[in-house]
Amino acid sequence: MKAQFKAVPGGTVTSPGGFFAGAVSAGINKQAAGKLDLAVLFSETPCVAAGMFTTSKLKSAPVQLTQQRLERGKAGVVVVNSGCANAFTGEHGLVDAAEVASLVAEGIGIDPEDVLVASTGVIGVPLPMKRIRPVVERIILSRGGGHDLAKAMMTTDTAPKETAVSVKVGDSGFTIGGAAKGSGMIHPDMATLLCFLTTDAPVERNFLGGALKGAVDLSFNMVSVDGDTSPSDTALLLANGMAGGEPITAESPSADAFRQALEQVCIYLARLIAADGEGATRLIEVVVNGAADLSQARKAARAVVSSALVKAAVHGADPNWGRVVAAVGRSGADMDEYKIDLYLGDVQVVKAGRQLNSQKREINKLLKGKEIDLRVNLNLGEGSATAWGCDLSEEYVAINSEYMT
Amino acid sequence: MKAQFKAVPGGTVTSPGGFFAGAVSAGINKQAAGKLDLAVLFSETPCVAAGMFTTSKLKSAPVQLTQQRLERGKAGVVVVNSGCANAFTGEHGLVDAAEVASLVAEGIGIDPEDVLVASTGVIGVPLPMKRIRPVVERIILSRGGGHDLAKAMMTTDTAPKETAVSVKVGDSGFTIGGAAKGSGMIHPDMATLLCFLTTDAPVERNFLGGALKGAVDLSFNMVSVDGDTSPSDTALLLANGMAGGEPITAESPSADAFRQALEQVCIYLARLIAADGEGATRLIEVVVNGAADLSQARKAARAVVSSALVKAAVHGADPNWGRVVAAVGRSGADMDEYKIDLYLGDVQVVKAGRQLNSQKREINKLLKGKEIDLRVNLNLGEGSATAWGCDLSEEYVAINSEYMT
Repeated sequence: MKAQFKAVPGGTVTSPGGFFAGAVSAGINKQAAGKLDLAVLFSETPCVAAGMFTTSKLKSAPVQLTQQRLERGKAGVVVVNSGCANAFTGEHGLVDAAEVASLVAEGIGIDPEDVLVASTGVIGVPLPMKRIRPVVERIILSRGGGHDLAKAMMTTDTAPKETAVSVKVGDSGFTIGGAAKGSGMIHPDMATLLCFLTTDAPVERNFLGGALKGAVDLSFNMVSVDGDTSPSDTALLLANGMAGGEPITAESPSADAFRQALEQVCIYLARLIAADGEGATRLIEVVVNGAADLSQARKAARAVVSSALVKAAVHGADPNWGRVVAAVGRSGADMDEYKIDLYLGDVQVVKAGRQLNSQKREINKLLKGKEIDLRVNLNLGEGSATAWGCDLSEEYVAINSEYMT
Repeated sequence: MKAQFKAVPGGTVTSPGGFFAGAVSAGINKQAAGKLDLAVLFSETPCVAAGMFTTSKLKSAPVQLTQQRLERGKAGVVVVNSGCANAFTGEHGLVDAAEVASLVAEGIGIDPEDVLVASTGVIGVPLPMKRIRPVVERIILSRGGGHDLAKAMMTTDTAPKETAVSVKVGDSGFTIGGAAKGSGMIHPDMATLLCFLTTDAPVERNFLGGALKGAVDLSFNMVSVDGDTSPSDTALLLANGMAGGEPITAESPSADAFRQALEQVCIYLARLIAADGEGATRLIEVVVNGAADLSQARKAARAVVSSALVKAAVHGADPNWGRVVAAVGRSGADMDEYKIDLYLGDVQVVKAGRQLNSQKREINKLLKGKEIDLRVNLNLGEGSATAWGCDLSEEYVAINSEYMT
């Protein structure tokens, strides 16, 4: 069945039917006084839920709690705070995370087990519960509250990251919304820093988990800002079924449309995360084609966007193609120096391993743009992948050398 | 047998008996006019030789040529140039590398097959043979020429890196010398950018290769500057036997002394490389103890020195211990948040997973030193390893965003 996809104007995590959100300033990070930093996402009907989490052996208290609660495959509420990751905080951190969830559950009148939690910010500092306890009841949930939630998630992000896509398949339809935060400690092999996805589609639990994994692998797992993986990384997907109809399974006529829409939302958010990497001035998109297989294409694309030398060269608009090829070479993907092609936008700069020296003016113009599109063809097989990153600027260093002090 | 080790004052690659070197300015990098950039290392008697090379699938022409020539396990000369890596230069690059070797062989009057080559500098640009050909014959070899060779290897290095250690075992003795260059594109799982090691000890071929691998694993393979691996990485060890005596094998009384002296030389050079990383203002030494095994200790130590966030925090003298623990957590090494201890110098800052908040003045003083010593105890097993790195500064970005332009 042919599906129609449409971006929802001003779309956010509360665009799908039945979702409400609200945020408040708890003053969790004293240096960001007045900033929204504590938010609640609520569905008026129970949700089927799935999650993906950090692969680090250091897992934040909220990650530990949420992973455990998600084993039941359902949820109704997400509480999120910025300014403090509640990671490397020991058993006390687990107690604090559970208390935040309970305070919200009590306010709304639901089972605390249906409340998931997520935190982002400084590692190794306890949640300031004295500042959080009194303000939880001041959070006002509304249908347009998704925007405030996206703002409350921000740390060094310069802009909120949110979107929604509505889908029509035959007579029925549904909407998928999402909000994310990124900036630093962003690297593949994990979900992302924080991403909350919502849908009013009715979705069967196993299919939901598989669709989330597929979309995250194509999006957040292909973004690198600084090569660091955070103990807080969390991607959650909640489906409340308010759009009506039979639960979508892998065999449903609308299964493909659901997967595609979810990928669209995640890739859109992943690109925003890469473009808003700490200190970033340019988005880098790397497409690798012709790799021996998919896994090698992914390795090669991620190695290029992760290379400090490529990132610094892009920052300086420096046409240093050798660094791109060197990054592919050390990625572990098979390559033949005499077969590799490289394009900047539509301009071919390397052909069968030889650098071309024409179109210098056009190349110079492209290198100074806000988005640098690099396309590598290894000409060895059928594997393709896309990864996103950003340039490495002096500003990244400035932000990260003075984060705590 | 008890051995005595002594640093040779002003020691270099020509400190061991029978080694000569010399350098010239060929103007390979036009922007560094007058800088020494082409050097020759020569042994007056044939050497047993071993090498370790980049693990990248993109190998420079000199690496390909030298790997092939080393299959015979012997050599007499090394030619090195800076300013151009002769990497990603196709078949023409191989022809150029062989011609440089032949020019030197002809000048000295030895078999070209006994000449090894190494290049460092920009990737993807051919060697300027027109500028190299006329100056090869101007290189004057001398017993003190090692210093010029160390200078000729430099690219963005701020100082030459060289040392020598003399060893006495019973009635006999030998000297090991070394010169290295580092700066950018320095990361474990390879040898190093360039390192030439010499000794007048008589050494059996297999033992020589094993000793080199052991020393490189403990030194250059534990250094990270920027996470990038170069197509040029080369470590060579030449033994000419001029000190006399029976060839050292794994069973010889002086085998341990040889290994230890080689490790000393390599670790000394590795620390210089880390401290002189591009834009570095501080050396970081990370010791991991109590890991489940050696391989996990190595992973954890390398993850900490490779973390952009740890490096930026060290640059800003920021006591962000959470980032150190997070780097261990994502390294893949087993860790238990409730067992980890962390020390800055002699000051314990984390005990059994809890941050200690005392000695702030002392910590502040230590963080502002030229060398930051971090010691992690995972308290899980017997695995120990040491890694070296440097802070991440705005200067790193400045250097690498304008390297070609």
